[in-house]
Amino acid sequence: MEVVQVLHMNKGNGDTSYAKNSTVQRKIISFGKTIIEEALLELSSNYDIDSMGIADLGCSTGPNTLSVISQIMDMVRATSDHLRRRVPEFRLFFNDLYSNDFNSLFMLLPAFYKMLKEEKGIGLASSQCFISGVPGSFYGRLFPSNSLHFVYSFSSLHWLSQVPVGLESYAVKHLNKGKVYISKSSPQSVVNAYSSQFQADFSQFIKSRSQELVPGGRMVLSFLGRKSIDPTTEDGCYQWELLAEALMSLVKEGLIEEDKVASFNAPYYAPCAEELKVEILKEGSFIIDRLEAFEVDWDGGAVADTHNEQGKMMVGERVAKTIRAVVESMLESHFRLGQDTMDVLFIKFAEIVGNHLSKTRTKYINFVISLVRKASHINLEAQPTDVFLF
Amino acid sequence: MEVVQVLHMNKGNGDTSYAKNSTVQRKIISFGKTIIEEALLELSSNYDIDSMGIADLGCSTGPNTLSVISQIMDMVRATSDHLRRRVPEFRLFFNDLYSNDFNSLFMLLPAFYKMLKEEKGIGLASSQCFISGVPGSFYGRLFPSNSLHFVYSFSSLHWLSQVPVGLESYAVKHLNKGKVYISKSSPQSVVNAYSSQFQADFSQFIKSRSQELVPGGRMVLSFLGRKSIDPTTEDGCYQWELLAEALMSLVKEGLIEEDKVASFNAPYYAPCAEELKVEILKEGSFIIDRLEAFEVDWDGGAVADTHNEQGKMMVGERVAKTIRAVVESMLESHFRLGQDTMDVLFIKFAEIVGNHLSKTRTKYINFVISLVRKASHINLEAQPTDVFLF
Repeated sequence: MEVVQVLHMNKGNGDTSYAKNSTVQRKIISFGKTIIEEALLELSSNYDIDSMGIADLGCSTGPNTLSVISQIMDMVRATSDHLRRRVPEFRLFFNDLYSNDFNSLFMLLPAFYKMLKEEKGIGLASSQCFISGVPGSFYGRLFPSNSLHFVYSFSSLHWLSQVPVGLESYAVKHLNKGKVYISKSSPQSVVNAYSSQFQADFSQFIKSRSQELVPGGRMVLSFLGRKSIDPTTEDGCYQWELLAEALMSLVKEGLIEEDKVASFNAPYYAPCAEELKVEILKEGSFIIDRLEAFEVDWDGGAVADTHNEQGKMMVGERVAKTIRAVVESMLESHFRLGQDTMDVLFIKFAEIVGNHLSKTRTKYINFVISLVRKASHINLEAQPTDVFLF
Repeated sequence: MEVVQVLHMNKGNGDTSYAKNSTVQRKIISFGKTIIEEALLELSSNYDIDSMGIADLGCSTGPNTLSVISQIMDMVRATSDHLRRRVPEFRLFFNDLYSNDFNSLFMLLPAFYKMLKEEKGIGLASSQCFISGVPGSFYGRLFPSNSLHFVYSFSSLHWLSQVPVGLESYAVKHLNKGKVYISKSSPQSVVNAYSSQFQADFSQFIKSRSQELVPGGRMVLSFLGRKSIDPTTEDGCYQWELLAEALMSLVKEGLIEEDKVASFNAPYYAPCAEELKVEILKEGSFIIDRLEAFEVDWDGGAVADTHNEQGKMMVGERVAKTIRAVVESMLESHFRLGQDTMDVLFIKFAEIVGNHLSKTRTKYINFVISLVRKASHINLEAQPTDVFLF
């Protein structure tokens, strides 16, 4: 599977679309906001920027995409006002993989430009705003050298550039039989393949951004990870464990071939804080300003009682929809399921998730890292902070 | 009708798609190539550029889009080799209106990047290439100041930013009854509304580009126009005359309301050379290096004998498909026709076009203008050249 050509959030505005099923991501964004605000304040206090390059890496398409950038522009404007400086020109770059639904995102722009002009006075002669879409993988260069001041990425960096090398061929499909990601039953070679792929990808990410960000430029990254060093810990992989269970139950019903499940491995990795620090320190261009972790409910924190059948079902369905909007393109490309079978799969998955959550409230762990591109006049010593779990 | 939100070439890859029906545009591009080559040679000889900003305004989506940029990169590379200079980094911007099918264009990029790397060695450490999509109207600012070196636009500038002011309201629909563009029967007020809208739009275009291009930067524009000062001359408007005839024949059949035709005016204008020169000179930042005009067959020059019924039909159909791929989104938005009626309309149109071309070989007139952004060390006197018709 060519991840760079296949992976995309569900398009459009329908019932299974990402735009309609991204409350978990919205929750995660609201946690990251304070850290973005802090980073932008530091950036604007240290530099008087005429034309600010800002990139959203893995922007996807939905209400979240423009709401985050709009808040960032508000923060920059407020800081400029406070410092009695001119609001900079904004150069905004929305990046995602080639198959992302850029058309839907771009159709939101006329209204967005109108709002900017009317509510914020941006787009007038004094403060311009230039928006572009930059398709491609962030595990490589996307922008000219020294062209960006601020980079952020939400809910994207847990996706690998590809199925781990060594697990993508049909020849090794017995290795992780009946599972689709690292599991308690996975042999060490599977765990190693996943962590090596993460290291290769994350270091490429850091290296590419270090060339694109100006010295002193800032980056806030938010993505799923795990608390423990043990990669089979529940908070890091249990959604995949349950998806594998749903797939295997369709195998039993004869709707999916067992071989197909055996040869599927998700291009995903939930790292721990230590793995992140190692790669950032090894690359050497960034100072870790903050590294925090927090828990997120699988259903985005909606309150429902999972002790009765209806509550269980509701929660299960909500979680299943959220995950479907994200993984459907990938499953479709590998399993070639018809719409009906896909529906059956996610009904089954919803049931399994509901049952699981009624027993254990497994949560996602989400990291937020704030990084500064080293500059000669900033203390060059890297300062890895401890991870605070809140 | 909001042109910036409605106008787009037919999407996808089907029988009525723009991608499959753009031979006329391909023809026009091949005429423009020599002039682009000349402009790039001048640009590269005068300036040693590290990072070259190139924008395609009105890029649409199809095989033409990437083939032109690929040829441009070849030319720059050849010139750099010849001058024993490093090939510059390329920053490529594809612009079109918000509703353009950017998704299809972006899906062509993985193969394009691969070709660049394998055949041309671009994308390696020595010579990078960064591609982005910039949605928005080119009748306003799209790029930061002084960020571009070369701008080109093919088959786009004959589209106005909107239906001419004064003709867009239903109240004045009697003014141009039974016609959809300037016609011999149009009153002077209609002609004036069209030419005023063109002047306003084209001067905005020139002004915006003068801010975005570096001094010495170049621009090659190619679009439909007319030979004579008289705007009702056949080469400037006859395709619209025949489309109006087709629409009116559907009115007679009760498939379209007469009122709908009366209130439709195409957001299109075919200027003459004098109108172009006036706006460019008035704005004052550009030197006209070349201004040429050539004739293009309505069917892109395919040889078919229009003296027999089959030949007539073939030519008519080919022309109708070419025009349908371009105007369908606009007709759909105004007339709200079903697919069946749209088919009937273009069958009728094909018949009318076939009949017309069997009597008179009306052709399009296409302009190619090559402009230089004034720089202090370039002769500041504007040098409007004569128009050569070849």
